[in-house]
Amino acid sequence: MNYQEIITGIFNTVETESFDGQLSSYIPELANVDPNHFGVYLTTTNHFEFGIGSCHKKFSIQSVAKVLSLTLAYKMLGEKIWERLGVEPSGTPFNSLVQLETDKGIPRNPFINAGALVICDILISELKNPKTDFLEFIRETSGISDLNYSERIAASEKSTGFRNIALCNFIKSFGNIKNHPDEVLDFYFHLCSIEMTCEELSKTYLYLANGGHRISDKHQVLNASQTKRVNAIMQTCGFYDESGEFSFKVGLPGKSGIGGGIIAIHPGKYSIAVWSPPLNEKGNSCKGMKFLELLTTKTKSSIF
Amino acid sequence: MNYQEIITGIFNTVETESFDGQLSSYIPELANVDPNHFGVYLTTTNHFEFGIGSCHKKFSIQSVAKVLSLTLAYKMLGEKIWERLGVEPSGTPFNSLVQLETDKGIPRNPFINAGALVICDILISELKNPKTDFLEFIRETSGISDLNYSERIAASEKSTGFRNIALCNFIKSFGNIKNHPDEVLDFYFHLCSIEMTCEELSKTYLYLANGGHRISDKHQVLNASQTKRVNAIMQTCGFYDESGEFSFKVGLPGKSGIGGGIIAIHPGKYSIAVWSPPLNEKGNSCKGMKFLELLTTKTKSSIF
Amino acid sequence: MNYQEIITGIFNTVETESFDGQLSSYIPELANVDPNHFGVYLTTTNHFEFGIGSCHKKFSIQSVAKVLSLTLAYKMLGEKIWERLGVEPSGTPFNSLVQLETDKGIPRNPFINAGALVICDILISELKNPKTDFLEFIRETSGISDLNYSERIAASEKSTGFRNIALCNFIKSFGNIKNHPDEVLDFYFHLCSIEMTCEELSKTYLYLANGGHRISDKHQVLNASQTKRVNAIMQTCGFYDESGEFSFKVGLPGKSGIGGGIIAIHPGKYSIAVWSPPLNEKGNSCKGMKFLELLTTKTKSSIF
Amino acid sequence: MNYQEIITGIFNTVETESFDGQLSSYIPELANVDPNHFGVYLTTTNHFEFGIGSCHKKFSIQSVAKVLSLTLAYKMLGEKIWERLGVEPSGTPFNSLVQLETDKGIPRNPFINAGALVICDILISELKNPKTDFLEFIRETSGISDLNYSERIAASEKSTGFRNIALCNFIKSFGNIKNHPDEVLDFYFHLCSIEMTCEELSKTYLYLANGGHRISDKHQVLNASQTKRVNAIMQTCGFYDESGEFSFKVGLPGKSGIGGGIIAIHPGKYSIAVWSPPLNEKGNSCKGMKFLELLTTKTKSSIF
Repeated sequence: MNYQEIITGIFNTVETESFDGQLSSYIPELANVDPNHFGVYLTTTNHFEFGIGSCHKKFSIQSVAKVLSLTLAYKMLGEKIWERLGVEPSGTPFNSLVQLETDKGIPRNPFINAGALVICDILISELKNPKTDFLEFIRETSGISDLNYSERIAASEKSTGFRNIALCNFIKSFGNIKNHPDEVLDFYFHLCSIEMTCEELSKTYLYLANGGHRISDKHQVLNASQTKRVNAIMQTCGFYDESGEFSFKVGLPGKSGIGGGIIAIHPGKYSIAVWSPPLNEKGNSCKGMKFLELLTTKTKSSIF
Repeated sequence: MNYQEIITGIFNTVETESFDGQLSSYIPELANVDPNHFGVYLTTTNHFEFGIGSCHKKFSIQSVAKVLSLTLAYKMLGEKIWERLGVEPSGTPFNSLVQLETDKGIPRNPFINAGALVICDILISELKNPKTDFLEFIRETSGISDLNYSERIAASEKSTGFRNIALCNFIKSFGNIKNHPDEVLDFYFHLCSIEMTCEELSKTYLYLANGGHRISDKHQVLNASQTKRVNAIMQTCGFYDESGEFSFKVGLPGKSGIGGGIIAIHPGKYSIAVWSPPLNEKGNSCKGMKFLELLTTKTKSSIF
Repeated sequence: MNYQEIITGIFNTVETESFDGQLSSYIPELANVDPNHFGVYLTTTNHFEFGIGSCHKKFSIQSVAKVLSLTLAYKMLGEKIWERLGVEPSGTPFNSLVQLETDKGIPRNPFINAGALVICDILISELKNPKTDFLEFIRETSGISDLNYSERIAASEKSTGFRNIALCNFIKSFGNIKNHPDEVLDFYFHLCSIEMTCEELSKTYLYLANGGHRISDKHQVLNASQTKRVNAIMQTCGFYDESGEFSFKVGLPGKSGIGGGIIAIHPGKYSIAVWSPPLNEKGNSCKGMKFLELLTTKTKSSIF
Repeated sequence: MNYQEIITGIFNTVETESFDGQLSSYIPELANVDPNHFGVYLTTTNHFEFGIGSCHKKFSIQSVAKVLSLTLAYKMLGEKIWERLGVEPSGTPFNSLVQLETDKGIPRNPFINAGALVICDILISELKNPKTDFLEFIRETSGISDLNYSERIAASEKSTGFRNIALCNFIKSFGNIKNHPDEVLDFYFHLCSIEMTCEELSKTYLYLANGGHRISDKHQVLNASQTKRVNAIMQTCGFYDESGEFSFKVGLPGKSGIGGGIIAIHPGKYSIAVWSPPLNEKGNSCKGMKFLELLTTKTKSSIF
C-alpha cells in the first residue's frame, strides 16, 4: 500500500474543497485559531510514518484527550470503572443533561462530557497529584517529554464553561462525583487543554493499533482485552451523535475534538491523526471527516 | 484455527451456565417455544462450516430479518434511503416513540422498530408483490428455497402488536410512511415471522462477511461499500440499547431478535448464528451474548 | 353589570383586529369553514342571556366535548376514574406521546388526547350503546334535543387521525385501554365531531357555573364537589400547553377546541361560549382568547 | 362563617391523623426541625385573624418566598419579565433540567427552581444592594421589621445545593442568566432561607387577597391586574408537579416550600398559612395539604 501517494492525493483533493464549517465558539481562545490549517499524520505498526500539511503545528486536542484519561483510569481500576458509567452510545448531543436525569447520574459512556467528568473524578481519587501524574502518564505513553497543558486554553474554558459546570454539579447531586466539583472541573479543563501536533497525536495513540503496547519498546499501556474495548467504545461513541455516521462512512474507531482534531485507529495496522479547525454542526471537523472517509474507501481499510 | 473444538468447548460451558433470562412475552406464540434449545452454526468464507446443538431446528428470526429488508431496500434505492431514516444509535429502547417526536418522524436507524417500518414502507412502494417478492429475494440470497413466513407467528403478533401499530401510525402522522399503515404493518409482521435454522441463518447472511457476494457463485447481493455500511450499522445499532455492550464485549457487527437468535459477522472471515430463546432485560439472548463473547475472546477475532 | 354593552363593545374591538391565526389543517373538513365567523354567547345563572355575531351557527366543538365525556364518566364512576389518569397539567403539546412513555400509559389529565381516549374507553365499558347513550346524556344535560354527531367530520378525522390512532394503540400497549382501539377511536372521533352553536354551548355547560345543577330545573348533573373539580381541571389543563397563559390572562376555567370554540366558566355566575376558527400556534382560537381576556379585565370577573 | 370553630375542628382532626411524610433531606439543617410542629394562621381582608398550634414559631419558608421575589421583580419591570420565563406549568419535578434543554434556557414559570433563579438574576441586575434591598421590600410589604434571612440555612443549602448550582450554570450556558452564577445562587439561597411564623406568613401575603394592597394602609404592592396574575400562576404552578392535585382538591391559589409551609389565598377574602414539616413524595406538606382540602370543603371556599 503506497500510503504516501494515497494520503497526498486525498489531502490535495480535500484541501481545495469548500465546506460550511465553523470554528468552535464555545471556548473563546479556540476562535483565534487560523481556520486554514490542515494537517495529517499516519504512523503504522510496522514503522512507517508520513505527514503532510500543518502536521507539525500544535493544536488543542480537546475531547481527543478523553481516550487518554479513560486509558489511565481503565489501566488502574479495570472493569470496576463501569460501575460508574456505561458503554452505550447516547443518541443525544455531547453536552446533554437530559439522559443523566433519567439515568440518575450514570453517564452513558466515557466520551460524552458527563462520562469524561466521572473519569476525571476517578483519576483525582486515585492519583496523588492528579494533573502532574496524568501528564507524566501521557509523556510516558507517547515517549514525548514536552507534552503539556495550555493554561491559557484551560483558563479560557473555565471562564465560559457553564454547561460543563452544570453537568458536573448535576452528577454530583446524584452522588456520582466523589470529589469537589471545582476540583473535578479544573482537572477536566486541563485535560481538554492538552496540545499536540498531528505527528504527536498519531504516535501517542498508536498503542491502540498495537494491541495495547507502546510501539517503541513493547511497554504495555493496556492489556489486549482492554485495548479492544477502548477501540469498541471509540467506534460506537467517539463522535457524539455522529458516531453512527462516522462508522458508516469511515468504518474505523476514532475520537474527535472541538479543536478540529480527529484520531482514527485501524487495529493491527495504523493510527492516523487529522486536524482542520472548522467544524460541522455536530462538532466534528469537516475536512477531517471527509479525509478519513476517502482514505478508508481508497485503501479499503475499513474494519467492516 | 480449530473452530470445531473451540465452539464445542464454549458451547458446553455456556449450555450448563444458568442465566436469569425470560422468554419474550410480547408475542404470545413465542412463549410456547422450548427455552432449552441452544444452537450454534458457523460458516466461513473459505467453505468451512460447523454446527452444534439445536442448529437444525427452525425458529422465529424476528428482528434479525431487518438486515435482509435493509439489504433489499439499499440494493434497490442506494443512498437515497437515508433521506428517510438515519444511521445513528438511538440510546433508547427498540420500541421507543420519544425520539420520533423530537426527530419529526425520522427514525434513528433501520434496526429499531420505527426504522424497520420505514424500510417496509419503502419496499412496499418499490415491489410489485411485496411479500412474495421479498421472499423470493431471501430465497435467492440464501439459495434455500423453502424459507418462508410463519402465518401463525405473524397473526399472533398482529393481534397484540399495539406498540408497533402506534409506531407506524405515529410515523405516518409525520408523513414518513407513504402507504397505508395497515399494509405496512402486515408486511412488517410477516418480515419478523420468517423462520430459519441456525444453519440457514448463518448461510443466508454470509454475503456480509464476503464483501457482498453470495458464497456459492459470487452473485453480488450488495456492493462492497454498501456491505461495509450495513456491517457498520449492525455494529453501532444491532442490539437496541445494548449495542455498545455487544461491541464492547463481542466486538463484531451483529443483529439480535426477540426469538432468541443472533447473527454475528466477522468481515472477510465468517458469519455465525446462535439461538437460545431466554432473553436478558434488554431483549437479547442471554446464552447467545455469552457464547459470542467467549468465542471472540478465545479466537481473538474481535474486529478491534 | 351591563353585559350586553360590554360584550358588544369588546366584540366590535376584537372583530376588526387582525391576528396571524390559521385554520386547523389537522381535519380536512375543518379547513372548509369560513374563517370570518365570530360568535359569542353568554348565559348567567340568574337567567340573563345575550349573543352576538355568528352565535347561532353550528360548528364542530371538537375538544370542548371532552368536558362532557369527563362529566359522564365522573358521574358514573366517581373518584375511581383517577386510577386510570391524572389531574396534572402536562407541560407538553396536546397530542404528545413522550410523557405517556415515561408514565407507563397513564395520561396526565382528561383533556389531553391521551386522557380523553381513556375516558372514552371507560364510557364504552360502562354504556350499553356508547354513542347513542352519550348523545342521550348531552341532550338531557342541555335540554336541546337535536344535538348530534357530524358523521362527515368524524369520518374526515378517522381518515387522517394517525396521531390519535398511534396514541390509542400506545396506551393499549400499556394495558390502560380495555376495549379494542378501533372501537375507542370510533367513539372518540364521534365525540369530537359534535356540533353546537355558541348559544347551545353556553347553555349546555351552564351546570358548571351552577354548582352542578341544570339551570332549567335544578336537575343535578354532577355533585358540588365534582363540579369544582372539573372546573379546577379546566383551569389547569384546559388549553393544552397554553393553560397557564389562559389562567394568567383570562383567569377563568375553560376549554378550547381546534374548531375554534372556547367555553369559559365563572363559577356561580356565568358560562360563556366564543367561536372564531383561526387558531394560534398552540391550537387555541386567537379571537376567542383575546375576547375573553378583555372581558374578564373589563368586568373584573377573573376568579383570582 | 365561624372560622375559629371550623379551623379548630379541622386542626384537631388532622393533627391526630398519621401520614407517611418525611422531613426534607435536601438541606441538612432542615432535617433538624421537630416534625411534630403544626401551625395554622388565617387573616381575612376584613380584619379577622386566628391562629392555632405552632403558629408563632419561626420556620424556613423556602420556596414560599418565590412569590415575594416574583412580586418585586414584577412590580419593578412589569410584563417585561415574561421575555425571560413563562407562565406554564412544567409537568416535571421542581428541579428538573430536561425541559430547560428543550426550551433553550427559558424556564416554564417563576416557581420552579429554574424560574426562581432567573427572577433572582433580574433582581440582582435591578437592585443596588440585592440582599439588603429585598429584605427591606418584604419588611415594608409585611410591616414586620424583624424578618430576616437565616445565614445558617443559607450556608447549609450552599454546601449541598449541587442541583441548583447545576440549574443556574445550565441557564447561564443559554445566556438567560446575566450576572455571575455564584452571585445569583448566593441571592437564591438567601431568599429561600427567610424565616417566618405562620402569623407572619399569613399577614405578609395578604396583599394577594386584597387586590394588591397592603391591608394596614392600602399601600399598593402590586396593581390589580398583576395581583390576579400572580394568583393565577400560583394556581397552575404553585405545587410543583402536584399543582393540578392542589387545584383539584383545595381549589385555591397557593405556594408550598420544602420547609413544610404553605400559603393559600382566597382572592377578596383571606390568606392562610399552614406549617407542618413532613413532606409527601412530591415535596409538599402532608398535613398542610390535608388541612387545606378539608378547610375549603367545609367552608365551601374553593374559587371554583
